[in-house]
Amino acid sequence: MEKVSFEPIGLIHTPFTGEKKLPRQGRFEPEKKGWVEVFPEFEKGLSGLEGFSHAYLIFHFHRSKDYELIQVTPRHHVEKGVFAIRSPRRPNPIGLTIVKLEKIENNRIYFSGPDMIDGTPLLDIKPYTTEIDCYPDADNGWLKM
Amino acid sequence: MEKVSFEPIGLIHTPFTGEKKLPRQGRFEPEKKGWVEVFPEFEKGLSGLEGFSHAYLIFHFHRSKDYELIQVTPRHHVEKGVFAIRSPRRPNPIGLTIVKLEKIENNRIYFSGPDMIDGTPLLDIKPYTTEIDCYPDADNGWLKM
Repeated sequence: MEKVSFEPIGLIHTPFTGEKKLPRQGRFEPEKKGWVEVFPEFEKGLSGLEGFSHAYLIFHFHRSKDYELIQVTPRHHVEKGVFAIRSPRRPNPIGLTIVKLEKIENNRIYFSGPDMIDGTPLLDIKPYTTEIDCYPDADNGWLKM
Repeated sequence: MEKVSFEPIGLIHTPFTGEKKLPRQGRFEPEKKGWVEVFPEFEKGLSGLEGFSHAYLIFHFHRSKDYELIQVTPRHHVEKGVFAIRSPRRPNPIGLTIVKLEKIENNRIYFSGPDMIDGTPLLDIKPYTTEIDCYPDADNGWLKM
């Protein structure tokens, strides 16, 4: 199929310069802080985001260079398919993290809960809403083990 | 910045052939059904997804040809920035929908809650987990109006 091309809309700045010290998920280290630099030409698009407590950052796992369809998970050490885990080593290395918004100033979004490498290219931002994004009764599948 | 290219990993099949009859969000029309055709070369990557009740589909809004940074929202008729709404008309037309998994058979995922056009190119699938994706106390920002 035809490839799809995207142009980053900004950069994500975090305290993490390498893979080794990355939190497994940002939610579990809320004391860590990051900020998004939205390129100035997109700044207007942030209008209205300031009232939300959380947002999705969709980004490029730009250091991820290959993938395997079956991977051994880091915590449980079981073999799972790449679409059943959140590994950065994916056929399309697209990252998805929900962050807690702290403050928006001009083209900068300050947030807590980063789990990506400093300098990560940002592709999109979407507001998180309880009405469509929160499923408290969801079944966590093999993670229940 | 350098562009990022992705190659679809499958196609999303839904009852919707045009924009006009699309549900605003799939969650609100759970009786609607869709299915994902994961291209055979990626089928193994689905292993382990079967126990989850929900998953993220990340896809290309392939019919979206332009965008505006400020848009009038369809329900509330207010002007909001593109990053504060879930419109398909975005700088990078990336779609994100949480669907309810019904059944996985070989390279097919049957689900409820489609809100995309039939034939939508699929970029990624991620399992939905309550531990990292559910924020029942999130502030819904301007949507509270």
